[in-house]
Parts: sequence; C-alpha cells; structure tokens
Amino acid sequence: MAGALEGIRVLDMGRVLAGPSCAALLGDMGAEVIKLEQPGRGDDSRGFAPMKKDKDGNNVSCYYKNFNRSKKGITLDLKTGKEVFLELVKTVDVLVENFRPGTMDKLGLGYEELKKVNPGLIYGCISGFGSTGPYRNRAGYDTMSQAWSGIMSITGWPEDDPVRCGASLCDVIGGLHLTIGILAALRLREKTGRGQFIDISLTDGGVVAEASMVEVYLATGKVPYKNGNRYTSSAPGGGYHTKDGYCVINGSAPKFWAMLVDIIGHPELAEDPRFLTNALRVKNREELDPYVEAWTMSLTTQEVIDTLLPKGFACAPILTIDQVVANEQIGVARNMFPEIDDPEVGPTRFINSAIKMEEGGPEIRCPAPTLGQHNDEIYSTILGYSPEKIQELREKGII
Amino acid sequence: MAGALEGIRVLDMGRVLAGPSCAALLGDMGAEVIKLEQPGRGDDSRGFAPMKKDKDGNNVSCYYKNFNRSKKGITLDLKTGKEVFLELVKTVDVLVENFRPGTMDKLGLGYEELKKVNPGLIYGCISGFGSTGPYRNRAGYDTMSQAWSGIMSITGWPEDDPVRCGASLCDVIGGLHLTIGILAALRLREKTGRGQFIDISLTDGGVVAEASMVEVYLATGKVPYKNGNRYTSSAPGGGYHTKDGYCVINGSAPKFWAMLVDIIGHPELAEDPRFLTNALRVKNREELDPYVEAWTMSLTTQEVIDTLLPKGFACAPILTIDQVVANEQIGVARNMFPEIDDPEVGPTRFINSAIKMEEGGPEIRCPAPTLGQHNDEIYSTILGYSPEKIQELREKGII
Repeated sequence: MAGALEGIRVLDMGRVLAGPSCAALLGDMGAEVIKLEQPGRGDDSRGFAPMKKDKDGNNVSCYYKNFNRSKKGITLDLKTGKEVFLELVKTVDVLVENFRPGTMDKLGLGYEELKKVNPGLIYGCISGFGSTGPYRNRAGYDTMSQAWSGIMSITGWPEDDPVRCGASLCDVIGGLHLTIGILAALRLREKTGRGQFIDISLTDGGVVAEASMVEVYLATGKVPYKNGNRYTSSAPGGGYHTKDGYCVINGSAPKFWAMLVDIIGHPELAEDPRFLTNALRVKNREELDPYVEAWTMSLTTQEVIDTLLPKGFACAPILTIDQVVANEQIGVARNMFPEIDDPEVGPTRFINSAIKMEEGGPEIRCPAPTLGQHNDEIYSTILGYSPEKIQELREKGII
Repeated sequence: MAGALEGIRVLDMGRVLAGPSCAALLGDMGAEVIKLEQPGRGDDSRGFAPMKKDKDGNNVSCYYKNFNRSKKGITLDLKTGKEVFLELVKTVDVLVENFRPGTMDKLGLGYEELKKVNPGLIYGCISGFGSTGPYRNRAGYDTMSQAWSGIMSITGWPEDDPVRCGASLCDVIGGLHLTIGILAALRLREKTGRGQFIDISLTDGGVVAEASMVEVYLATGKVPYKNGNRYTSSAPGGGYHTKDGYCVINGSAPKFWAMLVDIIGHPELAEDPRFLTNALRVKNREELDPYVEAWTMSLTTQEVIDTLLPKGFACAPILTIDQVVANEQIGVARNMFPEIDDPEVGPTRFINSAIKMEEGGPEIRCPAPTLGQHNDEIYSTILGYSPEKIQELREKGII
C-alpha cells in the first residue's frame, strides 16, 4: 500500500539507533530513504550483536538490519566526496543525522552551508544534549541521558542503587520526537517553501518521559525518588510475589478494593479503620500489603491473573521477551514481529512499528541494504552519473 | 509564532496522560484543540496530584494543567448530548480518545458512525493493547504495559525483583506514536480527502522502546534479562559507586580503556592478559570492575565526572529531579521547564516539548482550561448556537 510519505526523499546519515530509527520509520511510511555510509566501513552498528550467519558463514548484524529496513544504501566519503554530497543534498527533502553536534560543520557541511544549495531542506539532528547550550559538544548515549535526565533517580528500589530502564527509551523517544518534527516541518514547508533545522536532545526526551514525576517537583518542590513498583498515591497496588514469580496489581479504586478484600479472603478489612480510604491505605500500606501478598503467594502468577482479570482489575504478569514474542495479543494479533525473507540471512523477524493505521501507515517495505548496495542505482538515476563516473568514484574510494 | 498545525481543529476526548499528551503536543504546534469533558466532573486527572492552591484555597491539579495546556475546554454529556456531539464532529479534523476500546461504540459514537457525518475525520485512539486482538477490552495503564511488553523483565538487578521504569514511558510513547500517525494521516488526507482510524497500543509502544533487546531474541533465540546498569557486550562500563553517590561510565572502547588504566592508577592493566580485548574484559568483568570502582570510590561523583568528561568519556552523575530542573543545560539552555502565569494558581512551571524547531514548532500557547471555560465561545462560534440555546443546554446538564 502506498505510504503517507510517498514522494518524500530522505538522506539518512544516522548511526546506530536514534537517527536510523527515525529514518526507518519515515521509510516504513513510504518515504524514499537513502542511507549514506562511509565507504568500506559503514554504520558502526553493522558490527553490533545480535548477529546471524550469511550463507558464507560471515556474521551479519540484525541490529543494523532492524533499524535500517525500508532504506536504500549508498556509500560516500564526506571528505573526498563533498561535491557529490552537495549535489545529492540538492535533491532531498529531509536529512537525518545523529553525529556529535559540530561534526557536520567541521566538514563544511553544516545546515547553514546545506541550506544555501537547498533552501527547502529539512535538516533533523539528534544528539545527547541538543545542539545548543554548554553540554552541546558531549557525546550522546541512551544510558547517559537516562542518568542526566533523572530517569535513573526515579527507577529502582528505595534501598538499592539507581538503575537504568532496560529499554533504550531515550534513543527511541529521540527518534520519535525527530519524526514528529520532520512531519510538522514538511507541513509548514508546503505553505512557506522553506526548510528548517530541527534539533532533538536525547536528554530532553528523557525529561518528557518522566511526565508527572517532574511536574510533582515543579508544582510542589518535593523531589520524587525511586519507589520500586509502588504507586505513590494509591494503595493497594504495585508488585507482589506469587508462588512461582511476580505480578503487578492495581486494587486501589474503591470498587476494586471492595472486591479485593473478598478475593484475598479478608472481608473484615473492608471495615478496618486503617484501610477505610485510599489515603489511609497509602498511609498504612506496610500493614496492608502483607494481606495482599499472602494471597498472591498462595497462587501461581497465572492463577492470580486468571482470578483478577475477568473481574476487571488492572493486573499483569512480568512477561519475558520470549513470552512477549509468542503472546497471542502482541506477537500474533498486533503483528509486532513480522518475518522478512532477508537476502543475506534468510527469514528473520524484526520489530514492527506500533503505529497501526488503515491507510498509508508504517510497514517494512524492504530489507536493510548491504554496504553500498544501491550505489549504481542512486548515483545513476538521481544524480545522472555515467557508469564510468561511478566506476571512477569507486576506484578513488569516494564511494 | 504561527504553528505548523495552524488551521487544524482537534477534539480531545483523552483522559489522564496518553491521549491528553498527544492533543497537548498538537496544540503546542498550533492546532486548535478543544478538550471535551463530562459536565460537572471533567477528566479524572483534575483530581490528581500534584496540586496547587487557587486564591480561594481550593486544590487545583498541576498534573491536569501540564497535559492540557494549549487547549480550549468545553463540557458535553455524551449520552444526552449526542446530537450536539455529532454537529461538533462535523467541524473537526482530528479526534483523540483513550477510552477502553468499545466505549465510543457503546455510546453509538464509534468511528464507523462518526465517519458517516465526517468522512475526512482522523480518529486516533490509544488503549492498553490496541483495538484488535483478544486483549482489546482490557484497561490500559502504563505499569501494566511495562509488565506485558517485557520492559520490567529487562529492568533492575539480576538478583532482585523486576522493577518498572520510573518514567511513564508507555503512556508517553503512546502519545508520540499517535501524534506521528495523525500527522501522517493529515498528509495523506490532502491527497485522498479521506480520514482514517489510527489505533495505538501502549503495550506495542513498550515493545518498540525495547529495540535491540527484542532483536537479540528474534535473531538468536537468547532471552535478555535484567542486567542492572551493565552493558551486556562491552566492558568496563555501567554503574559505579563514588565517595558520595553513584555514576555511570563507559570506558570500553580501546581508546578509552587505554586512557582509563592510567586514570585509575593501574597502567599495568593495559598489558594484563585478562583484559586485552573488549571480549576478554566482558568475560572477566567481575575481576575488572573492582579496579574501576576502587578509583571512583576514592572521589566524589563530581570529581569523577570532572576527570572523565574533559577527556571525552561518556559518563554521568545520577541527577535527581531538582538537579535536572536547575541544570544549566536542561533547565536553562534547553528551556525544558518554562513558567506560565496560570490564571488560577499563578506562575507555575510546566514540562516543555523536546521538539526544538526554528519555525512552527511546539510552544505552550495558553494555560489549561477550567472545566467548561470555553463553552460559550465554542458553542456560539463553531456551532452557531444562540446564548439562549447554550443556556438551555447548560440547564439540562448537557453541557
């Protein structure tokens, strides 16, 4: 099906995760995405686990393949191929990069230069702290942004060390923020004809993810800290051990608390003065939670879930990744892990976009390119280079 | 400055976080967002902490205010005001809701009905598991989606219970995914004239955030588990105690490892056969990390950072939320917490969007509405109702 971004050409100079994930989503939505890599070397993530073997027994990165599907691939040395690069930039609508700020400027290829050759260019970049401010020159990594943004200070158990979220949430949110910026800039460009510079910081995105936790401090001056799985303002709720594992339950609303006292075999708690209101249950949660956990510990996780879910409780087991992939809802009904027949490594499953639309939405449109796979196609059709010229560029190591 | 979404009208029926955060971002980008709430009651989050006092001493929710800035507010009872609702839907471009799937259908106001009166309507919804599949009727909560999506299985310490990410990442990512879907659908509608249904699941978004962790399983069958702050495939790196706290450091690349042995006062480790390559350092990390931590423990966190940052290391202190807000980069240079003079609670800081654009990008355009604040304005200007008719609707409790 034709994508919503059909007719838009994107030059993806991204590396590893944040930039490439944005460009992959644009490609999934039908944009023509050209991934530009250093000749002979490519995106560092071509060396990142997980690997699968190709038919000759070489390791091929499925990390790279996941974040670079729905793209074509070319090589170009940015130092020796500057003229070629500028010719290419003239033909694209969007450029995505996640170099350390200043890298493109040092190459003489910063936004101010590029907009001279293409005033309609939408230049989107992602970095650890954004391209303004005193930290702008620092390298960006998901874990560092989880630390600097405060996410680690609110994740984990009160008595333990701070811990990072196991998901690469700053990287992923950075890619989503840039995607939104690009779509908004494309819309504006239709009115103005002008492109613009979009500047995303992984750390800013971490702050946005904290949401109400930050607002607590902004409104009250009270600093939120890590609190395990407990809700700070409702009880009972949070994580409980079961006979064979762990689960999360929310039983704090009056309706659910009223049901829960019967389910856990303590109807007398409904009248217990310590637990009459949510505020009292929060205050006395150390005395309350053992009642709940005595019940959950008497059952398997599955039995807890099977008891509570049909009654409308919010509750969940802690799925492991293999269970997520096999899950009838996530893996099957929502098709979150479609299989692609990759020309190098054969049938492999990748992570689908979570944006489910009737028409024009994201789908994996082609497997990730091998290094320079589309050099002939792109340089001949888009820039009109002759086979001889392309061969010359190749021999000189420019592409 | 005019926003990129100027001229687009959005009806926000969202509650609490995921839906309202999407609509607020659309409003920040210049869309006319009309928040529709139940008369006399409003969005549940009007009762959520943090609270500030208004001049009469009443509690007013800054949770609500943060996620409902850049909107106008009206009230409408969806049962008694169905006709009014349909007249309103005819005039809007986008509808956002995050009810439990089926709620709007039960009211006779599902997408299939609404598109009959407005074929161009872009109907965006967010729910715990999406509107398809066997789990579609279950309630959606950030914590439950962190559990079902596998995020909790990869967050925390190997020897501890699984723990949720302290940020509401599934809610926030859900809002960002819907924003992207809406922008893509608006683009497509310009070609086709048709609206469409966009269906976002909080749990699917959690899966997307896991990124390469899921790909590890898909490509190799190996299930990733929680691993604290360690990188699984590089060393030294992760979290280390300091004299007064904790920090994260990445010293695994050859260049940084070579520097680090000198910095920590153990140049002999450069030649140590246990640590010659990254693979060996990963294998022998239990013997390696004590050398690093002996050094970090001899210094304050600030001293560690001041030593490593100028040499180009990726490293970070664990900022607490108050430190994030005061931080010269995040709070100051990036303006992530702008102050709004709120008519009810006075000057208050809110969380800015992380999308920094030259032109037409997000900015907080007005404070959140009081319940029904714009009833007269919206019902008279958009639907052309007379003051008498509006008064009648009010007296009947329809608005």
